[in-house]
Amino acid sequence: MEQWSALLGPAQVLTEAAALAAAQTATYPTHQRVLAIVRPGTRDEVRACVRVANLHGVALYPISTGKNWGFGSRVPCFDGTVILDLGRLDRIVELDEELAYVVVEPGVTQQQLHEYLQRETGGRLWLDATSSSAACSLIGNLLERGHGVTTYCDHAAQAADYEVILPTGECIHTGYGAFADSATRALDAWGLGPCLTGLFSQSSFGIITRATIWLMRAPEHAEVAFFTVDRPDAFERLVDELRPLRLDRLLRCGPFFGNIYQALQKVTKYPWELTGGAVPLATEIALQLGKQHRFGLWNGSLALYGTHDEVAAQKQRLMQVLRNNAQWHAFVDKQPSNLDQTFPASRHSEVRSVVAGFTGAIGSTGLPAGYWRMRTPPGGPRWVDLDRDGCGFKFWTATTPFRGRDAARAAAIATETILRHNFEPSIGILPVRERALQFHIACAYDRQVSGEDEAVMACHEELSERLMDCGYYPTRLGPGSMHALQRWEPAYNRLLQTLKHAIDPNDIIAPGRYQAGPP
Amino acid sequence: MEQWSALLGPAQVLTEAAALAAAQTATYPTHQRVLAIVRPGTRDEVRACVRVANLHGVALYPISTGKNWGFGSRVPCFDGTVILDLGRLDRIVELDEELAYVVVEPGVTQQQLHEYLQRETGGRLWLDATSSSAACSLIGNLLERGHGVTTYCDHAAQAADYEVILPTGECIHTGYGAFADSATRALDAWGLGPCLTGLFSQSSFGIITRATIWLMRAPEHAEVAFFTVDRPDAFERLVDELRPLRLDRLLRCGPFFGNIYQALQKVTKYPWELTGGAVPLATEIALQLGKQHRFGLWNGSLALYGTHDEVAAQKQRLMQVLRNNAQWHAFVDKQPSNLDQTFPASRHSEVRSVVAGFTGAIGSTGLPAGYWRMRTPPGGPRWVDLDRDGCGFKFWTATTPFRGRDAARAAAIATETILRHNFEPSIGILPVRERALQFHIACAYDRQVSGEDEAVMACHEELSERLMDCGYYPTRLGPGSMHALQRWEPAYNRLLQTLKHAIDPNDIIAPGRYQAGPP
Repeated sequence: MEQWSALLGPAQVLTEAAALAAAQTATYPTHQRVLAIVRPGTRDEVRACVRVANLHGVALYPISTGKNWGFGSRVPCFDGTVILDLGRLDRIVELDEELAYVVVEPGVTQQQLHEYLQRETGGRLWLDATSSSAACSLIGNLLERGHGVTTYCDHAAQAADYEVILPTGECIHTGYGAFADSATRALDAWGLGPCLTGLFSQSSFGIITRATIWLMRAPEHAEVAFFTVDRPDAFERLVDELRPLRLDRLLRCGPFFGNIYQALQKVTKYPWELTGGAVPLATEIALQLGKQHRFGLWNGSLALYGTHDEVAAQKQRLMQVLRNNAQWHAFVDKQPSNLDQTFPASRHSEVRSVVAGFTGAIGSTGLPAGYWRMRTPPGGPRWVDLDRDGCGFKFWTATTPFRGRDAARAAAIATETILRHNFEPSIGILPVRERALQFHIACAYDRQVSGEDEAVMACHEELSERLMDCGYYPTRLGPGSMHALQRWEPAYNRLLQTLKHAIDPNDIIAPGRYQAGPP
Repeated sequence: MEQWSALLGPAQVLTEAAALAAAQTATYPTHQRVLAIVRPGTRDEVRACVRVANLHGVALYPISTGKNWGFGSRVPCFDGTVILDLGRLDRIVELDEELAYVVVEPGVTQQQLHEYLQRETGGRLWLDATSSSAACSLIGNLLERGHGVTTYCDHAAQAADYEVILPTGECIHTGYGAFADSATRALDAWGLGPCLTGLFSQSSFGIITRATIWLMRAPEHAEVAFFTVDRPDAFERLVDELRPLRLDRLLRCGPFFGNIYQALQKVTKYPWELTGGAVPLATEIALQLGKQHRFGLWNGSLALYGTHDEVAAQKQRLMQVLRNNAQWHAFVDKQPSNLDQTFPASRHSEVRSVVAGFTGAIGSTGLPAGYWRMRTPPGGPRWVDLDRDGCGFKFWTATTPFRGRDAARAAAIATETILRHNFEPSIGILPVRERALQFHIACAYDRQVSGEDEAVMACHEELSERLMDCGYYPTRLGPGSMHALQRWEPAYNRLLQTLKHAIDPNDIIAPGRYQAGPP
């Protein structure tokens, strides 16, 4: 602590109980203790901090802005770790409008980039935002392989040139960044020779202090489709009929599907009065409530992008699928003028948020879900803050083949398991990578209600095992869930341990993170 | 040798001088000696061979089909290496038409997969072929990060689940393949936790015995555009005006540009009589010769894919660019019916090959170039074989930003340097990854002509350095060129050495390959 204080100034080394308690608080139960929070302000300060940690064998847990809600927030995997808070590294280092990219530091938020792009390019470049807080870090989300919903939804695939601080304090750059004077460092993620980018993604091998993020050019035209299906068999068929459109890249993103609970949580809170305080909310009641908002059992959305003629051609083909399979559908433009005729007033704000997420702005459509069962409104002045407000919120992820029967099977398992544990199964599905569906499954609850913390963890464990038993493995993990990796083939786990030991022999970077433990 | 013979049978361990001499022969001068050629027939035999090699500290150089022409063919980087020939592992292990992928072994060739897809899917799935031999290995090309010209041109980005034999003989699978029962192992390359796929690409860290390759669904409609520009400034402008179309994914591939030499080499041989035996062929004469084939200074091609309406919309937008910038343009369908009106007869076969490459078949348009300066025709009965026929053929690669001024600058440097060394600069350019152009620059010569082997290496060295001095680094290297990697940042090189030492402490897999040497 003394050495860090000397390096950064004492104000940047936090050890007060209140600060540590806040940092130890996630949206589900965790028991790991944090020793301190260290806040370097520059890359060189990060390097110096890492060298001190390596010298003394103290473990660091790097966070960007720490808004990893539902996946553990700022909480490390193990006790006795020091949080390395990179939030002060918040510069947008470079913008190239012609080649459509920015270079950012870990503290740069979605909001910050959005405002910057509006100002510097007049909105000609779009960011692909996650549906979480506008205060989320771009790099934090990238390194967890998060996603948005536009053409650039696969964040890990739309980035290059990670600047990595190794446990030695050395600084490297991945891809063509390995050549200091490369003209294409920002433009091609593979580089020459072995590509190390993947090694530093969902990993504990280094600390990323900068990355290039590719941006989508605002298309000439965009339209957002909304559609619903009310029967499981129609859902299966719709998934199967949309698959070829996505594989053919007629659809450049989506389709996104949210179940009735995911939909309701965007526009309303738990109907305590209707249920007389009972939980969980039965599906029939949820469907009944959904009707007034024009929600169905499954609620689809996707965007069409291109020239006006391209969008017209895409729409024509998409309509063939929707007409045969969807119960209801509608299209809205970037600046929706037809909301009154299309949606009940209760959804106007939500629809605008969804459209924002599809058109280069920030929708934050997932945020209200965190307060679904909370009887008190968000407490903070500016941002909602699930950690601060005691919200219970637990995410599962799973990935299945992009096939109706797999989607239906995973959804059925999640629904049955979660309702049986007395929570509401919020399910969102998106083919982030064309051939596979990513499931984001969430339970929202109130951490103040006795027993619910334990119940959500039991539920998580059972659902997680059931999904993995079907071959539906997670896409992302939080502290407390890393043991899923014990299902790695033993030789694979041994290789990862060999690599970790070679790169980080003193185990000082994020111990336990995306590690299965000893074979 | 005894142990390998006992494992595989003596017929699969070759040590005869003729076989070794052939394996030591590339299309440019190399001096590395090969100790033996070992030919396992199954994955388990590969594992056993590797264990023997590790036990005795003998280095293995894995090849698939060994057709790495222009980049060293089968020749290892160092003396005293044993070639591990994986050509007998030639099974197409799995096909999924719905999710559009195959799982193949290293010996599976482009031709084999093409015939298989015709038979099993009636051509509903396309492969993305390289322009080289139909006998090229799919996995060999994938691991070198090769490319074709369709939507799936970036081979490394359209693959998953590498099966890797480590130097210990252990077998691992990358991505979701690390979970033995994953339902998405073939469908998502990233998996969960650190992604190791890139580590085994252009690398010496393991031997790939199987991989999943994603395939393009045959679109409802495809049209191939051909166009020419005759002035350098028009070329620059055309590159700049096509960039937004590619970034917007209106173009799902291309544009490909070949200079006049690249174009001529597809349809004719060196005009010895016209030049009275002199070399190099001056650009003015090349342009003059090109006129009769309707070739210009730069010759563009690209394909439009989609529904008929989508292609019409794309074409409309593309035409705006071509009308303003191209000197000449034409469109042809998959089964070209308008060849007579559009191209001189001298090009009908070449145009059909180009169209084949854009529509899921094998064009092999690059092959004739190998014989450009050869006074004798290809010697073999079935396949052309540049190694066997003494063809001189040397590739450079470089990558530049997708910008007219960078394309023009790199092309000017290559043209000036190569002509000064008395070779013809064949230049092909393709934005394999949207934001950057990949240059394939080739010199074709006759290895029997005294002094030309040395001249091509001197030329290579000078051009390579000049391009790197501009920041235009290679995308791929052959034996004899690995010293380009000495330009890696020292810390990056140290990290790669650390990883190599951790994974392959006895340095038995492809020593020297994509390695810079000691820092």
